[in-house]
Amino acid sequence: MIIAIKQGSPTEEVRLFAKSLEEKGVQVHFSEGVSQTVLGLVGDTAGIDAESLSANHLVEKVVRVQEPYKRANRKFHPDDSYVRVSTPIGGELRIGDGFFSVIAGPCSVENREQILGIAESVKESGAGFLRGGAFKPRTSPYSFQGLGVNGLELLLEAKKQTGLPIVTEIMDLNQLDLFGDIDIIQVGARNMQNFTLLKELGRCGKPILLKRGLSATINELLMSAEYVMAGGNENIILCERGIRTFETYTRNTLDISAIPALRRQSHLPVIVDPSHAAGLSWMVETLSKAAVAAGADGLIMEVHNNPEKALSDGEQSLNPSAFTNLMQTLKKYIELEGKKLRIEE
Amino acid sequence: MIIAIKQGSPTEEVRLFAKSLEEKGVQVHFSEGVSQTVLGLVGDTAGIDAESLSANHLVEKVVRVQEPYKRANRKFHPDDSYVRVSTPIGGELRIGDGFFSVIAGPCSVENREQILGIAESVKESGAGFLRGGAFKPRTSPYSFQGLGVNGLELLLEAKKQTGLPIVTEIMDLNQLDLFGDIDIIQVGARNMQNFTLLKELGRCGKPILLKRGLSATINELLMSAEYVMAGGNENIILCERGIRTFETYTRNTLDISAIPALRRQSHLPVIVDPSHAAGLSWMVETLSKAAVAAGADGLIMEVHNNPEKALSDGEQSLNPSAFTNLMQTLKKYIELEGKKLRIEE
Amino acid sequence: MIIAIKQGSPTEEVRLFAKSLEEKGVQVHFSEGVSQTVLGLVGDTAGIDAESLSANHLVEKVVRVQEPYKRANRKFHPDDSYVRVSTPIGGELRIGDGFFSVIAGPCSVENREQILGIAESVKESGAGFLRGGAFKPRTSPYSFQGLGVNGLELLLEAKKQTGLPIVTEIMDLNQLDLFGDIDIIQVGARNMQNFTLLKELGRCGKPILLKRGLSATINELLMSAEYVMAGGNENIILCERGIRTFETYTRNTLDISAIPALRRQSHLPVIVDPSHAAGLSWMVETLSKAAVAAGADGLIMEVHNNPEKALSDGEQSLNPSAFTNLMQTLKKYIELEGKKLRIEE
Amino acid sequence: MIIAIKQGSPTEEVRLFAKSLEEKGVQVHFSEGVSQTVLGLVGDTAGIDAESLSANHLVEKVVRVQEPYKRANRKFHPDDSYVRVSTPIGGELRIGDGFFSVIAGPCSVENREQILGIAESVKESGAGFLRGGAFKPRTSPYSFQGLGVNGLELLLEAKKQTGLPIVTEIMDLNQLDLFGDIDIIQVGARNMQNFTLLKELGRCGKPILLKRGLSATINELLMSAEYVMAGGNENIILCERGIRTFETYTRNTLDISAIPALRRQSHLPVIVDPSHAAGLSWMVETLSKAAVAAGADGLIMEVHNNPEKALSDGEQSLNPSAFTNLMQTLKKYIELEGKKLRIEE
Repeated sequence: MIIAIKQGSPTEEVRLFAKSLEEKGVQVHFSEGVSQTVLGLVGDTAGIDAESLSANHLVEKVVRVQEPYKRANRKFHPDDSYVRVSTPIGGELRIGDGFFSVIAGPCSVENREQILGIAESVKESGAGFLRGGAFKPRTSPYSFQGLGVNGLELLLEAKKQTGLPIVTEIMDLNQLDLFGDIDIIQVGARNMQNFTLLKELGRCGKPILLKRGLSATINELLMSAEYVMAGGNENIILCERGIRTFETYTRNTLDISAIPALRRQSHLPVIVDPSHAAGLSWMVETLSKAAVAAGADGLIMEVHNNPEKALSDGEQSLNPSAFTNLMQTLKKYIELEGKKLRIEE
Repeated sequence: MIIAIKQGSPTEEVRLFAKSLEEKGVQVHFSEGVSQTVLGLVGDTAGIDAESLSANHLVEKVVRVQEPYKRANRKFHPDDSYVRVSTPIGGELRIGDGFFSVIAGPCSVENREQILGIAESVKESGAGFLRGGAFKPRTSPYSFQGLGVNGLELLLEAKKQTGLPIVTEIMDLNQLDLFGDIDIIQVGARNMQNFTLLKELGRCGKPILLKRGLSATINELLMSAEYVMAGGNENIILCERGIRTFETYTRNTLDISAIPALRRQSHLPVIVDPSHAAGLSWMVETLSKAAVAAGADGLIMEVHNNPEKALSDGEQSLNPSAFTNLMQTLKKYIELEGKKLRIEE
Repeated sequence: MIIAIKQGSPTEEVRLFAKSLEEKGVQVHFSEGVSQTVLGLVGDTAGIDAESLSANHLVEKVVRVQEPYKRANRKFHPDDSYVRVSTPIGGELRIGDGFFSVIAGPCSVENREQILGIAESVKESGAGFLRGGAFKPRTSPYSFQGLGVNGLELLLEAKKQTGLPIVTEIMDLNQLDLFGDIDIIQVGARNMQNFTLLKELGRCGKPILLKRGLSATINELLMSAEYVMAGGNENIILCERGIRTFETYTRNTLDISAIPALRRQSHLPVIVDPSHAAGLSWMVETLSKAAVAAGADGLIMEVHNNPEKALSDGEQSLNPSAFTNLMQTLKKYIELEGKKLRIEE
Repeated sequence: MIIAIKQGSPTEEVRLFAKSLEEKGVQVHFSEGVSQTVLGLVGDTAGIDAESLSANHLVEKVVRVQEPYKRANRKFHPDDSYVRVSTPIGGELRIGDGFFSVIAGPCSVENREQILGIAESVKESGAGFLRGGAFKPRTSPYSFQGLGVNGLELLLEAKKQTGLPIVTEIMDLNQLDLFGDIDIIQVGARNMQNFTLLKELGRCGKPILLKRGLSATINELLMSAEYVMAGGNENIILCERGIRTFETYTRNTLDISAIPALRRQSHLPVIVDPSHAAGLSWMVETLSKAAVAAGADGLIMEVHNNPEKALSDGEQSLNPSAFTNLMQTLKKYIELEGKKLRIEE
């Protein structure tokens, strides 16, 4: 961390300020130029609040050179990390580590027939995981809010039938007890900075799929991952799902650069949600290809047996045959990237 | 709600589609033009999901004419509503209803001396409410997270000493039991779409200060208010606190237009947080004046006895003498707007 | 300018790099810490390209402490500057210097009757300047493009009749010869970074009203002012007119913080365009009041005798009686700010 | 175009309003529901200004169903169009039509040795076109502004030597005479809505490379193409180069979705500029691969023989060996998309 001191600041005050910084456990290197004094902070600056320093009347500017995250930081963990998921039949799936994971399923679990049908269908087309919402964060209180506990049970039935591990969203830490048999717990974009929930998830050992908030920076996404990791749970999958911009053609704007950025800054696996990013089913295949080419470790997407009758997010859901075609196309791109579609069980 | 049908759609299919809509409890008016068929939906369309309709292959475009919120909507409640807060000494403060409310205090409660000192000081300068964070949502897990329960106790001690009602943030619904003696529960920007929390707050009768999310539209803020109101709690205060844009000079961009927009669309009182919007203490007074002139019903701002040593948000906190000056200046603007600074008790 | 050097960089290479910087005319102060070497650049760094420096393999981060603009910078010109405009009857109007200037008129000049009528009307209500578009930048080539030269002539006729100085937009430097009798040349938001035009305007002595681009930062707006000033023309009026964000309720988002920000960074007068910012006529008065309270030196707004029949921007134009009411209201706020509505001639 | 009429509007007034619309050359279909009257406009609505209609006191909402662009619209030109460029040696290169075009070269032409060296180098690696700036739009008036006419001459010398057609930026219509031997005229992001320039380019027959503005919507980019096409010049290449968002990790945010969106809405070829989008040379290859996979017809990117000493944009320029590697990698992705890297001459 570098602190530029305001011109004309009394030397004695600056020295006292430097001393107060050293009391916070960092070393301070002093550089006095003719017109610019600069303090260089060395050591663990993650706990030092740049904004609070800026309030000091001696300070012109504070610049962080070191990232404020540690466990999520590639600098301290140069190799890619990956997340392991046990399959019901005793095998193991890996997210990351050269495997490309496709998580598919409906926005919401609607009924038994629907979720079992879709599960069979996406499995056949090559998906490695089943997704489906039981607790649904909806903008309107008058929209369908999900089947709740019943939804979770139907997902587990689908898991039993197909062997596909389950990814589903948690909306509140009180629901955590219900997620015992769920394989990957999803934290939605609107909860990316629900720090109480993140801390609680840090105490459980399950894989966490952490979605980027609608207006969260790459740095903030990694800080949210750090919250979970600081609690001891390092099984994090990061997910880019589109950010909010001025463009309205698409529901959100897929930040394709976030993939290489996250992979450079962090060792954690990164997947992409093209369905929520675009909000347009016809665009999902194109964005999926782009995500593979940009280095993603996987995709999560919405597939519905009858998108026109879906209780939520119909506009962005693929029907099963479109999903089958997409998987056929993707395989070539995944291969070109030197990855394998799924682990041999 | 208006649905434009794609050109060339078979008439019979369109009629069946219209029928399926009527089964959802609305009336459908059919308008066939030479090249454009339009369906007009009449009745309670709040529960109809525009996005799901868009997935239908017959649909070109769906346009909502009616807002999707009802209880928060000025159309169904033309008069301004206001929120009542009982004072410890038996009086009543109103937020809205021609009164201008100033809520002031530190970002975080740090210790007994700090919070009691600031409370006395802001009261003397004319603040009507004391704010202070006990549970703090911080971007970094390594930053100060607040004093928690002890912080709440210190706030209640300050309330006892000064008579100022307390505004403080809830981060999770499990904390709700601790907020029994808190006067106004704040929902922070990062929790604006924590729908589980909003539903729970709908069941308690306390005033809720609902902050706009960093990238939430005006419509989404009102939908979040609707979540609380749908549960039966209509004591909502809306708060504009700056949105995230490309500009980095300020921490966020204060959306001053949100004040007249919210007041036109809704009957709920609207206040402004100039401290978080700007992130710069020297700009708080100017933005406060602008907020009064734009029709706000109040302000919530950060005041710290020693901003340079604040454990959080020092850069945007006023010191007590700056706050006193600000209040002197504001009084003239509040008067010009025909409002009273605080209720006579 | 501060340059943080990458850890582990060979000392000899860093010294050569520092030498190459000194050849660009700045002094380089060297600060070697245990783990962080920092170079401090002193002198005129405005011509040094931070981005090019960042390409150097030794560089970790480049931070500008000094602003890259000089003539527009308040640091080198602590007092407010103002712009003088001669009136046809021999007097002088000032923009800035304690005067509050209101520039009003239609989006487009449509015909003789329209512009003369509006000119008389806004003068009577207290406007100090007449605006009206002769050359119109329209998103669609099929929209009305303005009356061109005829429009300028009609504006000059209105000036003759009312004595109001004229503000109108230039779209290309080839039009400059036609602007000989125009009092203030407006550069529109879409031309804020038309650097060829800015340079040409730097060579003419006329006052320039420079509008902020839709996605221009405060820093970029000041750099565009610097382009004109570097050519020798220091008669610049800055104009905040709303920026593009995700919010769609308003046409743009008025960045009210830009007023105090520009006034702190620069000595140039700052005005606000509430009509384009909101795009909603009913919101203009509220935003105008907020702009006065935030310290603006004036307003530019759209007034049309018959907004419903306007050839452009009808939705955001006031009718004359609404403008009269607005001026009555504004006077009190202008007075409270210690400003005078217009110079005594 | 659909116009929802406000509830309670007098029928007679609505009929008069409808009649006034018919006088603008469209047919109006009338649909009176119980609580909602809707007018459907049929015919050529491109010249009708939705905003002006919104000013009418009878109007609740105006919705455009038809796009406001015609010549750029795929609906009226279902097949892909392409742009032909003659090579100095008598052949023809096509942009679009199944060919993938790579345009490479330095940000600025700096001197003879530099541009000739880079031209040879990028040709050898497989680039089909040489780019290089002679007139440079720079944010600061104190930055290097380009070699101007001399730069153009050096580009033409490089063309003679290598046979590569030239792409370079025009900053003002007065420069047009100098572009006689330039093959493709680039309109920069900051000039995307310089309508005077666009109209002039509509009168020349040369291919135009039109870059998307920093905050321009997809619709606005197509309207700017329409400006050129309305003048008779249909040789347009659209270019996505990143939009401005809140994210600061990258210089801009590459809107990868713009590729499929533009290709669906328009028949014009679409290329991508990964250098300006990211502003980080190490990210260029990844984004290039993603652009190919998303369906782009080509790439324009910055290559410099010595990025660390570049006079502009060094941070985002590749060196020649990185470019060679990138081209090797890209070939496989281009092939997978069923495209050819360049036309057989």
